Amino acid sequence: MGRITSRRKVVQARGDGARSTLLDTLAVEEPLEIRSAGEVMNVTMRTPGADFDLVAGWLVGEGLVRGTRELTSMSYCPGLDDHGRQTYNVIEVILADHLGIGRAPRTTFASSACGICGTASLESVRVASPYDVAADRLEIDGAVLAALPDRLRSAQVVFERTGGLHAAGLFTADGGLLCIREDVGRHNAVDKVIGWALREGLLPLRGHVLQVSGRASFELVQKAAVAGIPVLSAVSAPSSLAADLAEEAGLTLAGFVRGGGFNLYSRPERVPDRSRLAVSGTRGT
Amino acid sequence: MGRITSRRKVVQARGDGARSTLLDTLAVEEPLEIRSAGEVMNVTMRTPGADFDLVAGWLVGEGLVRGTRELTSMSYCPGLDDHGRQTYNVIEVILADHLGIGRAPRTTFASSACGICGTASLESVRVASPYDVAADRLEIDGAVLAALPDRLRSAQVVFERTGGLHAAGLFTADGGLLCIREDVGRHNAVDKVIGWALREGLLPLRGHVLQVSGRASFELVQKAAVAGIPVLSAVSAPSSLAADLAEEAGLTLAGFVRGGGFNLYSRPERVPDRSRLAVSGTRGT
Repeated sequence: MGRITSRRKVVQARGDGARSTLLDTLAVEEPLEIRSAGEVMNVTMRTPGADFDLVAGWLVGEGLVRGTRELTSMSYCPGLDDHGRQTYNVIEVILADHLGIGRAPRTTFASSACGICGTASLESVRVASPYDVAADRLEIDGAVLAALPDRLRSAQVVFERTGGLHAAGLFTADGGLLCIREDVGRHNAVDKVIGWALREGLLPLRGHVLQVSGRASFELVQKAAVAGIPVLSAVSAPSSLAADLAEEAGLTLAGFVRGGGFNLYSRPERVPDRSRLAVSGTRGT
Repeated sequence: MGRITSRRKVVQARGDGARSTLLDTLAVEEPLEIRSAGEVMNVTMRTPGADFDLVAGWLVGEGLVRGTRELTSMSYCPGLDDHGRQTYNVIEVILADHLGIGRAPRTTFASSACGICGTASLESVRVASPYDVAADRLEIDGAVLAALPDRLRSAQVVFERTGGLHAAGLFTADGGLLCIREDVGRHNAVDKVIGWALREGLLPLRGHVLQVSGRASFELVQKAAVAGIPVLSAVSAPSSLAADLAEEAGLTLAGFVRGGGFNLYSRPERVPDRSRLAVSGTRGT
C-alpha cells in the first residue's frame, strides 16, 4: 500500500486563521505507460495498484480485447528511475496475433475527410459494444440501487485517508459487491474494475451493475456498454451525451443516486416501480 | 446557451419511493476535434461554448503556443451532421510557421528506450514552463484565498441548473474575478480560462490565482505553471504528483479550500500568516 498513498508536510490554516504544520496523506498519482510491440499505446495518470487490471480494462474499453484469450501477457518493463529503483510505470502487453495489433488505438485514429468532419469527430471516439446490452433482462430493486453509493463508500479504504480518490464498484443485482477499485482518475477506476472482471473470466458482465462515485460521462457509459454491463449508476450528474449513448445502447443510466433517491435517464424499466406493481396487482385480483 | 444545456425526460424516484416523470436539465458533452494542417492533434469531450478559448488554452498547455503571435488563426470546419446542420465540433488551427508545427503533440510522443522507460514515461507527460513561476512575488491574504471557492460557485451559471459542471476561475491577488469557465471536464475548464487569457494578451499570468472546483491533479498544476500562474487553489484534494510538481515549479498549491480553511502543499509563504506577522511586529517595537 506504500505507493497508493504518500505522506507530506503541509501548512494547515483553520477557518479561524490558526495555522499548524502537520503530515497529510495524499493519494499517489503516477504515469502508467502502456506498450505493445514496443510502441506506446497510451500514457495515463493513475494511482498505482491493480495496474494489470487497469491495463486489461483499458484494452477492453478501446475495443482491442474481449477476453483472456486475446490478452497473451502483461509485464512490467524493467526500467529504473534516477535512483536505480524499479518504477513499475511501464507495462508491455502482448496481444493474440489474430487481432493484428499494431493497429493504432482509437485515440490516435485519423478521422475522415473534412466534409463530414462533425460526424467523423464523434465517430472517432465511439467504440461499439460487442454485446447486446439492450436485451439484458436484469431488474434491480430501487431500494437496492439507492443503497449502492453507501456500500461503495464504506468499502473505499484509501478515500478516508486522502479525500482524493474516485471509486468504481461492480455489484450483483441484489447489491452484493464483487469488486471495488479506487483511482485519482474516475475512468481508471472503471477500467480497473472491468479489467479485474476480464481477468476473472467474467466478461460480458450481463446482469451486473456498475456504481461510480462521481459523474457519468460519455466515456464511462461507453466503457460499461463495451463490457456488457446493463446498468450504470452515478452519485452525481450525467452529461447529455452519456444519456444519449445509454439510450442508444439500451443501458440503464441512473444519476444523482443519493439521499435514497435517484433519476433514471434511460431504460427505467430495469428499476421497476414496486408501488405501482402492488397497485396493479390489487386491481388484477 | 442552447447547446450548453439539454433538457430531457427522466424518471425521478424520491427517497420514499414515490416516482414522477419530469424534465431534467443536463450539461451538454460533445467531442471537439482540434486539427492543424489537416492532422488531428486532439479529440476532447467538452461542453460547447468558449471553444476558441479551449483550443488556445490546450495549445498553451501542450507547450505549442505562448502568445497570440504564435496562433495565426482558429476556425470551425464546415462539417455537417446527418441532419445537414453545422456541428461546430471541429476546429482547424493555423500556427505560426516558426513553430515548425507538424511536430506531434505531447500525447503521441514515442518515449525513449526501454532501459530508462520509467523516467521516459514521466518525461513524456511533462511540459516545461517557459516562465520563472518560482520567482513570482505574489502574496494573497488567507481570508481572500478561503473565499475564492464561494466566489467561483456564485459565478457558475450552468452548474445550478445541471449539477454537472466543473469550473475554473482566474482571480487577482485581492480576489477580483477576471474570468470563469465551466465544462464537464475540469481540464477543459482550466484550458478555457488560460486560452481566454492568451487571447486577451495576458500571458504569462504573473500575480494571478487559479481556483478550481474539484481536485488538483498533476495536469492542472502543469497547465497553471506553463501559463505562468503562481497559485493554484483547489476545493478538494491534490494528488502526490500535483504536490511534487508544484514544489518543483515553485508554485503555491492550496487544497481542501473550504469552510474558511485550507492546506498549503508548497510555497506557503505566498499566503502569509497575518497573526504571526502581528505578533512579530509587537515584538519588534
